[in-house]
Amino acid sequence: MTATVQTTRPALDPAALDTLFRTARSHNGWTDQPVSDAEIRALYDLVKFGPTSANTQPARFVFVRSEAAKARLAPALPEGNRKALAAPVIALIGYDTKFYDRIPEVFPHNPGFRDLFVNKPEMVEPHAFRNSSLQGAYLILAARALGLDVGPMSGFDQATVDAEFFPGGTVKTNFIAAVGHGDHSKVMERLPRLAFADAAAIV
Amino acid sequence: MTATVQTTRPALDPAALDTLFRTARSHNGWTDQPVSDAEIRALYDLVKFGPTSANTQPARFVFVRSEAAKARLAPALPEGNRKALAAPVIALIGYDTKFYDRIPEVFPHNPGFRDLFVNKPEMVEPHAFRNSSLQGAYLILAARALGLDVGPMSGFDQATVDAEFFPGGTVKTNFIAAVGHGDHSKVMERLPRLAFADAAAIV
Repeated sequence: MTATVQTTRPALDPAALDTLFRTARSHNGWTDQPVSDAEIRALYDLVKFGPTSANTQPARFVFVRSEAAKARLAPALPEGNRKALAAPVIALIGYDTKFYDRIPEVFPHNPGFRDLFVNKPEMVEPHAFRNSSLQGAYLILAARALGLDVGPMSGFDQATVDAEFFPGGTVKTNFIAAVGHGDHSKVMERLPRLAFADAAAIV
Repeated sequence: MTATVQTTRPALDPAALDTLFRTARSHNGWTDQPVSDAEIRALYDLVKFGPTSANTQPARFVFVRSEAAKARLAPALPEGNRKALAAPVIALIGYDTKFYDRIPEVFPHNPGFRDLFVNKPEMVEPHAFRNSSLQGAYLILAARALGLDVGPMSGFDQATVDAEFFPGGTVKTNFIAAVGHGDHSKVMERLPRLAFADAAAIV
């Protein structure tokens, strides 16, 4: 046993754990309280610090807020998910399949890491999909941390959203999330969670 | 403008945002402070509440803590990632490709949703990969929320980890994450993050 540096970082207080996880809920209805540019930028300024493999940050975000943009999104949503359009903002979480072109900038001590993806194109999709999903989860929890509510969903017409909102052709939409201030009267009953023994083991 | 129910949930305090995002770092070195069964269970009891599509919770977690289990994991790690074995726990985040068999239990108001995946097997992998990635991100942030440090990584031999730790044959490993109390003297320099304009837009 050697002497060790002890961490001094404390756990969050119980109320914060509630806000992030325990009493937080996915939302289906929204108040008319808006979400400002400053709030969206504050949200990104948390999300960007979440870890990604080799710091590649493949996620690309479009925050759909204007009525005109919502009208372009509407045809891509199935009837059951159009409730999202009542939210002040719908965040589109996509991933850039050319994320590796930014590696010299975001991973400057090893710019040649880019070649790994150029030479093994089959690695691109899993890397971008996994890490943009992580970043999407950071967005969900960062929004809650800022006092916002979220309603994530994956049922939509991906090709339409890609073409309308990521017209460069290299970004694919991963999932979308309504963001705003939830109408707590419209939250559904909490669904069952798997018990530890059904989902986890200590070996 | 109609009257609306205002949310009363406050934002987290700045120190909590630091702990989760702003000053949190991926760790490479570890103190010898252990991680208890109670801490692992507390971690799962936060992670389980993070949202997944149709509440399917496809992630399966193995917490590798014993020396015997670490010895089984070692051959699956490339030299550069064996540093993870010095952590008190290495969390393996996998996804069950038969997650849909739990739908009648976790999505009880629509048990027939299971058939969607049975009838469209091409939907299984993206659903399980996306949502287990979300759950892996919840684990990273939940660990930080509990005062733990994390070192996530995706460089390992997936087939070996699958066979050693998920022997039922239906679970694939997504990524792994060392968990413990980080040695802050071994943290690397913070890498650059993409500017808002490079990764996001408001429309």
